[in-house]
Amino acid sequence: MKTGEDKFVRRIAKALDFKSQKQLALGVGDDAALLVHRPGYETILTCDWFLEGSHFLPGKHPPDSIGWKCLARALSDIAAMGGRPRCFLLSLALPDETTFKEKRWATHWLEEFLGGMRRAARQFGCVLAGGDTTQRREILINVTVVGEVLAGRAVQRSGAKAGDRIFVSGTLGEAELGLQKLRRGTRISPKKDRALRKHLYPEPRLALGQWLADRKLASSMMDLSDGLSSDLPRLCEGSRVGARIEAAEIPSPKGPLTASKQQFDGLALALNGGDDYELLFTVNENDVRRIPRSFQETPLTEIGKITRERRIVMAHQDGTTKPLLPRGWDPFRK
Amino acid sequence: MKTGEDKFVRRIAKALDFKSQKQLALGVGDDAALLVHRPGYETILTCDWFLEGSHFLPGKHPPDSIGWKCLARALSDIAAMGGRPRCFLLSLALPDETTFKEKRWATHWLEEFLGGMRRAARQFGCVLAGGDTTQRREILINVTVVGEVLAGRAVQRSGAKAGDRIFVSGTLGEAELGLQKLRRGTRISPKKDRALRKHLYPEPRLALGQWLADRKLASSMMDLSDGLSSDLPRLCEGSRVGARIEAAEIPSPKGPLTASKQQFDGLALALNGGDDYELLFTVNENDVRRIPRSFQETPLTEIGKITRERRIVMAHQDGTTKPLLPRGWDPFRK
Repeated sequence: MKTGEDKFVRRIAKALDFKSQKQLALGVGDDAALLVHRPGYETILTCDWFLEGSHFLPGKHPPDSIGWKCLARALSDIAAMGGRPRCFLLSLALPDETTFKEKRWATHWLEEFLGGMRRAARQFGCVLAGGDTTQRREILINVTVVGEVLAGRAVQRSGAKAGDRIFVSGTLGEAELGLQKLRRGTRISPKKDRALRKHLYPEPRLALGQWLADRKLASSMMDLSDGLSSDLPRLCEGSRVGARIEAAEIPSPKGPLTASKQQFDGLALALNGGDDYELLFTVNENDVRRIPRSFQETPLTEIGKITRERRIVMAHQDGTTKPLLPRGWDPFRK
Repeated sequence: MKTGEDKFVRRIAKALDFKSQKQLALGVGDDAALLVHRPGYETILTCDWFLEGSHFLPGKHPPDSIGWKCLARALSDIAAMGGRPRCFLLSLALPDETTFKEKRWATHWLEEFLGGMRRAARQFGCVLAGGDTTQRREILINVTVVGEVLAGRAVQRSGAKAGDRIFVSGTLGEAELGLQKLRRGTRISPKKDRALRKHLYPEPRLALGQWLADRKLASSMMDLSDGLSSDLPRLCEGSRVGARIEAAEIPSPKGPLTASKQQFDGLALALNGGDDYELLFTVNENDVRRIPRSFQETPLTEIGKITRERRIVMAHQDGTTKPLLPRGWDPFRK
């Protein structure tokens, strides 16, 4: 007597350990999820598209990676506020089974997708609370993540002041290099290739974000999803300031920067590559000594300074200074 | 220096009164929204797809109606829990301007869409808190609504007991009749046609849901989105009970049930028509006298009884009883 949609919802709920949850009053199977919140905390809300052809290539991206990444990148917005994840809603539109079977890449797609999502959910402590399902020719995903942060401690984009130092976590541009390798069909396992792994299985910097927020060390913060050259202007706009960054300080990918036979420029990858999910944050100059060189094995690098003058420039080693143009990912670019 | 996406986000934020909000600590423009919650309340979370071709027909549905309806139907899930709306996240994927201009129906699409959404947001007291935007050949919408309910007062699907009476609000099947009129291109203004109005501009039964929840009058509740024949089994499944409904009691559309030249059966519309967004709820028999015949001009009709035996049957006026088969909307139906 159950409809197709009911069966589909049960399959998702089972794969994602729906019953094992204590912090939710109820969820999958009712009209909406109920979340009991902790006194003294504020709720963080964020959502992200993850669409076939736009955000992943169905024949290239393993479904396990798609499941992991669509949750991980939404969690990166929680990290960027200094928050802790609580639960997520999964909106999923999938082709019918017949259409799926016609596509060679689609065998066991849903199982593998849910497997990757389950691993990410467990690793980052974020449980499924609900969602919506429908049928569609193409795979469409939208993930809403709910997090929490101590009241008043959320780190925003608006707090950077002139003189603050600018930091980034990790290495920038690796994920873009990984994407280029994937596009060119380089047959490497993500286990053996750092760039590919970074592109397919990004790790939101939740612990770092919380550490900075709890100690009030970051005056402003955001995550790098579209590339430093597009995201730094957004932070500066939010804080009504400018920035000067040092080309030589930007942590770019090392080693042979090739995908198939094409050679890439490390600095261009680091400035304009998307999908890094590293944190960009500013620190008052008096607090800089409290920032370690690395946090849980992720390097923290000072790349420049916030300026009163509302321009964003990059200083090169030859002494020249040029405006930094936003050349990162923009779905609306002509 | 702003990217295309930044401009698009600002346009949405402006149209939806983003700055006028007090209950949100921050939102559009930062990585995530921050929600300050009231002590003694739980948070309700729900999300809904609204996709071109699946949930609306771009040449047939006015963009104003699409903006209204995608928010109203997500709010209906908040009504079904007895909750109050707080804020929403809008995920929107749109074609580029060139593609839009090629489509005759698309002039001023975004303005009209945001206009309809703004009217619904104001009418139902739900403010924009954030979202995600991207570019896509087809229009894709996903709405997440956050609501609140007094702790312990949320009405779930699991509370119906044998002997409880089954009620529905409003008239069932009108929205389906409206859709049939729209599909057949009947040139009627929704102002003059009740069925068309119900299909294009549904009104979530928020006040009724809250009234029932605050007084603990409903033992279980859900909203009717796919049709009574599909939704009643879901409520019974959630409560591990069965139901017996009376065909003669089901509030079906009155008047000439025609769209173009086709004649429709009122009972079939009421049982299987989707998009009603009325409330289906159960009431302990001792509380039935406290349920008025109508609530704010919306009729409340007793249509049957919950049974211990886990079957769902409909009794006809000729004395026969037949199983009720789920024939409502199911995106996964073969």
